[in-house]
Amino acid sequence: MLNIETTIERIREIIEDENYSQLQEELNNFHSADLAEIFPTLSADERLIAFENVDEDKAAELLEYLSPQYQVELLGEIDVEKASRIITLMPHDSAADILGDMEEDESESYLNKLPHKFSDEIRELLTYKEDTAGGLMNSIVLTVRKEMTVEEVLTYIRKEAEEDNMELYYIYVVDKHSHLLGVVSLRDLLTSHAKVKIEEIMMSDIVKLHVDDKQDHVADIFMKYQYNALPVVDLYNRLKGIITWDDVSDIVEEETTEEILQSSGITTAVVDEDEILSGNIFRAIRARAPWLFITLIGEFIAVNVADRFEFAIHALPVIAIFMPLLAGLGGNIGTQSITLMVRGLSTGQVTMNSALHHIGREMLVGLMIGLVFGLLVTLSTWGWQHHIELGVVVGLAMVVNMTLATIIGTVAPFMLKAIKIDPAVASGPVIATTIDVVGLAIYFSMVSIFLLGVLK
Amino acid sequence: MLNIETTIERIREIIEDENYSQLQEELNNFHSADLAEIFPTLSADERLIAFENVDEDKAAELLEYLSPQYQVELLGEIDVEKASRIITLMPHDSAADILGDMEEDESESYLNKLPHKFSDEIRELLTYKEDTAGGLMNSIVLTVRKEMTVEEVLTYIRKEAEEDNMELYYIYVVDKHSHLLGVVSLRDLLTSHAKVKIEEIMMSDIVKLHVDDKQDHVADIFMKYQYNALPVVDLYNRLKGIITWDDVSDIVEEETTEEILQSSGITTAVVDEDEILSGNIFRAIRARAPWLFITLIGEFIAVNVADRFEFAIHALPVIAIFMPLLAGLGGNIGTQSITLMVRGLSTGQVTMNSALHHIGREMLVGLMIGLVFGLLVTLSTWGWQHHIELGVVVGLAMVVNMTLATIIGTVAPFMLKAIKIDPAVASGPVIATTIDVVGLAIYFSMVSIFLLGVLK
Repeated sequence: MLNIETTIERIREIIEDENYSQLQEELNNFHSADLAEIFPTLSADERLIAFENVDEDKAAELLEYLSPQYQVELLGEIDVEKASRIITLMPHDSAADILGDMEEDESESYLNKLPHKFSDEIRELLTYKEDTAGGLMNSIVLTVRKEMTVEEVLTYIRKEAEEDNMELYYIYVVDKHSHLLGVVSLRDLLTSHAKVKIEEIMMSDIVKLHVDDKQDHVADIFMKYQYNALPVVDLYNRLKGIITWDDVSDIVEEETTEEILQSSGITTAVVDEDEILSGNIFRAIRARAPWLFITLIGEFIAVNVADRFEFAIHALPVIAIFMPLLAGLGGNIGTQSITLMVRGLSTGQVTMNSALHHIGREMLVGLMIGLVFGLLVTLSTWGWQHHIELGVVVGLAMVVNMTLATIIGTVAPFMLKAIKIDPAVASGPVIATTIDVVGLAIYFSMVSIFLLGVLK
Repeated sequence: MLNIETTIERIREIIEDENYSQLQEELNNFHSADLAEIFPTLSADERLIAFENVDEDKAAELLEYLSPQYQVELLGEIDVEKASRIITLMPHDSAADILGDMEEDESESYLNKLPHKFSDEIRELLTYKEDTAGGLMNSIVLTVRKEMTVEEVLTYIRKEAEEDNMELYYIYVVDKHSHLLGVVSLRDLLTSHAKVKIEEIMMSDIVKLHVDDKQDHVADIFMKYQYNALPVVDLYNRLKGIITWDDVSDIVEEETTEEILQSSGITTAVVDEDEILSGNIFRAIRARAPWLFITLIGEFIAVNVADRFEFAIHALPVIAIFMPLLAGLGGNIGTQSITLMVRGLSTGQVTMNSALHHIGREMLVGLMIGLVFGLLVTLSTWGWQHHIELGVVVGLAMVVNMTLATIIGTVAPFMLKAIKIDPAVASGPVIATTIDVVGLAIYFSMVSIFLLGVLK
């Protein structure tokens, strides 16, 4: 595989030596997906020089693999004529994405330089929101009529597919008003007799997307049905474009990132993930502060609970030092349960119907781990503080705390889902502080009853 | 879209009424991916009745979409002859996966009933480990020689693809010893002149996989290059099979699940994710206990740190009640930083080269959020406890704690990666307890210095 570190070093040296013929040879030998890994690690100046030394067709491919910030940066720095030529070499959907990320006057200046037919297609694609099926699709689709024969279709494909950079996976069958009637795979086309009519070999039960479908739904449908390409229709079942698996793979990665960031309390609803890592710092703070603020409120409740037991801490200060131990382990095992349930609900392995089964099972896991850990804590506290009653109370609190944490961590996602709140978004911080509050209350109550013989 | 709840209800009723002709009609009208969503929600008895009423070719498709436990369950319950027929209708790689999940004598009994050629292919596939490219690939590939013309290849495809249920995306070009020489897309084949030789239109720079490549590497390569299918070769570049995007989509989901579970301290190295949710409970505990145990040790260190300041708690018990607040917020913001870095390193948006940039940026985020939250904490503590010095110390500890938590959470993943430890596996629990320990030490030190005027 590509050793990226040494490759970058070499390319940097060639740029520094201004040996442009060698640079061209080196760069054009890479797969554009590899170039897309190299480019972000170069400095802006190096990146521009490198981009100018990539062949135009490779530059078009490379842009497809790069993230929006680099697409706009690179096209903006090079000659407008050359930029327009490169854009024309890209699939319509990718070209529309790039132009959609530019300021309007900037994208207009490119659109005016593009071939008329191409810019018309792009303008139509730009009317769809970027995060919908319409914004993802390529509007150039090969369509045929159901009355055509296999032979006619093959001849037609030879003529059509040559002139456009059309993606060819399935052949779509439409009527004269562009209504989608069926689909034929290239495989079926090739293996059917020349005189057979298309309607005889087409499938008419079609999995399709609607132009307004959100991109996460698009990704789910691709992951579920596992097709290479799906047609996109409008409200009247008129074929508007196709979405291919390569359009979706980026979204799958984006959705995964969102799910992972959300689990740690980073909001991706208003701030793009790229911005959180490298954009305006106030936008990054905006993505991170809301759930921290909820945690702040939750922990203030925990502080209030602890405050009610200040008399106990006053009487026996050593009890306070075990607070991090109980909170830490309760929080951890509870988070494990939350993560399992939220992820299971998202993949479909966990359903509302199986809620009781999972709650029972997690409780058992919490109890069993809690018993072992409780025993360990009892023994080590006893050995360390020479205070067996303290050891027993801390250990017992550990058992109760870990069991309760798994129960809360398991029940809460189901409850959130039942009231139509996405458990992936809201679970982590709220549940973790709930576990903290409940855990502390139980611990101090047990200390008060068993060690101090009082409960205020 | 499919409304799964009502659909299941209807199917259950039809099964209860023993109206099998209606059941057959209903079930065979569903896409097999939809059936695969319905089946796991049925009871084992209902599932078997439903499976027996699905046409054999649809049953073969359905099995491909189901998870291993249901595949083995359903095939084991039906007539062996019928099961063998259904297996023969599946692609070789899927059939091999199912048979590989069975006990050896059970899979042998099926293999002996399958057509000779088919069972030989399966036996070869079974020699590869399930989680490698060899275990994922389909060994039936259409290959041609570079001297053939486009016309000859098209005739050959018509003949070959018809008899086997072969997946047809690209045509692979090999020499007489099966060495992989190039690849031709169906599109290029269809749009080229009939008399052109294959070697003139084939691409010879081929992205390929090796039979022993691990499945997570396979998924990464598919996500990076965004091809629909990739060839798999052995050590000597002999073509052994192809992997298609639908084989990989399950793995992408599996890898995502692993990444998410790992982030909450659940080990997926020895225990399969399915087992954690619904297998043997001791296996589930084995997946969850190791990092909890590390947390236990870490929190005992935190307890020890707190113990060194028992004199401070003794002198001023109220300081103890703020421990959950500091630990909770430090832990949360630190976890956000860990998650951002670990995910960024995994997608390539964060690299070792950009480490310093991210450390600086995260520190700034931590400091800015810390300042706001510190001020809030100072004001509310002052208002609540009427003790301004206490408010200032707690607030100041909050600023330092949150800033340090982001620094530790950012630096640690880079350090782990530098010493070749996967930060996704080890980060969470270790870093979180480190943040707890450091945070407590700082808080109690500040209390001792500023409130008590001592530092033991």
